[in-house]
Amino acid sequence: MAAVAETAVDQAALFDFLLRMGDNCLILGHRVSEWCGHGPVLEEDIALANVALDLIGQTQLWLGLAGTIEGRGRDADALAYRRDAQGFRNLLLTEIPNGDFGHTLMRQFLFDAWHLPMLKALEGSSDPRLAEIAAKAVREVAYHLERSGDLVIRLGDGTEESHRRMQTALEALWPYTGEMFMDDAGDARLAGVAPLPSSLRDAWQATLSEVLSEATLQQPADGYMHRGGKRGVHSEHLGFILAEMQFLQRAYPDATW
Amino acid sequence: MAAVAETAVDQAALFDFLLRMGDNCLILGHRVSEWCGHGPVLEEDIALANVALDLIGQTQLWLGLAGTIEGRGRDADALAYRRDAQGFRNLLLTEIPNGDFGHTLMRQFLFDAWHLPMLKALEGSSDPRLAEIAAKAVREVAYHLERSGDLVIRLGDGTEESHRRMQTALEALWPYTGEMFMDDAGDARLAGVAPLPSSLRDAWQATLSEVLSEATLQQPADGYMHRGGKRGVHSEHLGFILAEMQFLQRAYPDATW
Repeated sequence: MAAVAETAVDQAALFDFLLRMGDNCLILGHRVSEWCGHGPVLEEDIALANVALDLIGQTQLWLGLAGTIEGRGRDADALAYRRDAQGFRNLLLTEIPNGDFGHTLMRQFLFDAWHLPMLKALEGSSDPRLAEIAAKAVREVAYHLERSGDLVIRLGDGTEESHRRMQTALEALWPYTGEMFMDDAGDARLAGVAPLPSSLRDAWQATLSEVLSEATLQQPADGYMHRGGKRGVHSEHLGFILAEMQFLQRAYPDATW
Repeated sequence: MAAVAETAVDQAALFDFLLRMGDNCLILGHRVSEWCGHGPVLEEDIALANVALDLIGQTQLWLGLAGTIEGRGRDADALAYRRDAQGFRNLLLTEIPNGDFGHTLMRQFLFDAWHLPMLKALEGSSDPRLAEIAAKAVREVAYHLERSGDLVIRLGDGTEESHRRMQTALEALWPYTGEMFMDDAGDARLAGVAPLPSSLRDAWQATLSEVLSEATLQQPADGYMHRGGKRGVHSEHLGFILAEMQFLQRAYPDATW
């Protein structure tokens, strides 16, 4: 039965899905880690670094499984450090620059509010390998969302200046949220293994409605939505991230430093 | 009795000692965090970020207590983000640039091998506030030393190239090790509260002898030793660290981002 179930699943679509999960964590983790040593206060510096650490840890799990599924001998490090930009499957939302602290936090909140229902759905995956990773990650991400939601509320419903910055961040980031919920042919082939992206929208919207209302922020109207990251069409920002992230491994393949 | 014991301790010397402990953690934590997103492999990136996080967490504790002792309303954040370079009391060892990955690791090992016996001695401090912080930090630092020692061995006793790099790093860093063991007048006033720096040398040397021998590395001969960090005379490198670290707080005092 297990063997039948496994061959029934489109392995290329599964590989692609795992890259999406891993690459979101890797690229956002990298962005968040840019705050290391630059947070506004020590506690915030530590909290942000912890989020980055969780995300990089999850990257290892998703990309490690992706490498196994691919079966060409690439491990998580090979996938992280030796793919070109067009091989990356992360949401554009994760690769755009941090902006100010409020912008970084708003992006984190919008992502966390998607990430949590995604992982909850994956806990029930018909593939126990995905369910296991999701069960581990869901605890960390529940905390990320609690934290980013709290901060969005605190800053949104804070001073006039902090409110203004948070509303500006929300509007700037909004056109990057649509990609999270777009279904494609690969998603359709993973029924039972992974949720359809569109099925996550209601849970996401419920979290947003609650938090934005407490934060006294206006949800922008839906308009044009950027897309492309999930199929490897990235902004120029990803290239700069990879140049920095992959430099060592590219310059000294297999070096231990 | 407690009140007598407290007034008997030179509070200025105690403040200075706590700055030394906190600033070592802060500046080394900042240096280590520079590797965030630049580690040679994902696992190493995570491990280094964890070390940085531990050190920044310890910074909060030491500088928080320093602020209490000082009694002028400065908290850990004020001490971290709003002191000038000459107010910093970290060892010069912690502020010099990272160099390559082996250099970063060797510095970490030389520091950890000092940090652990320092914290062990502080666990027995006559001041329970210091003893409590030390008891928390000692568990983290025991792990740092285990890890840095293992890596020094692995890289020292590794390839010809890695051996050469580690020996080079050891020689470059050696002149910065002497400062860890230099006693001054302030140290003498803290008998019972904190160990004399010179009393830590035997434990440090024992760790070095064991690890360097396994790593097939040569301990350099003692020669000229740099000094100054502990009394606020720093290299130009600290200025650059602070410019980066303190920018936000200086530009926007009390901002929440």
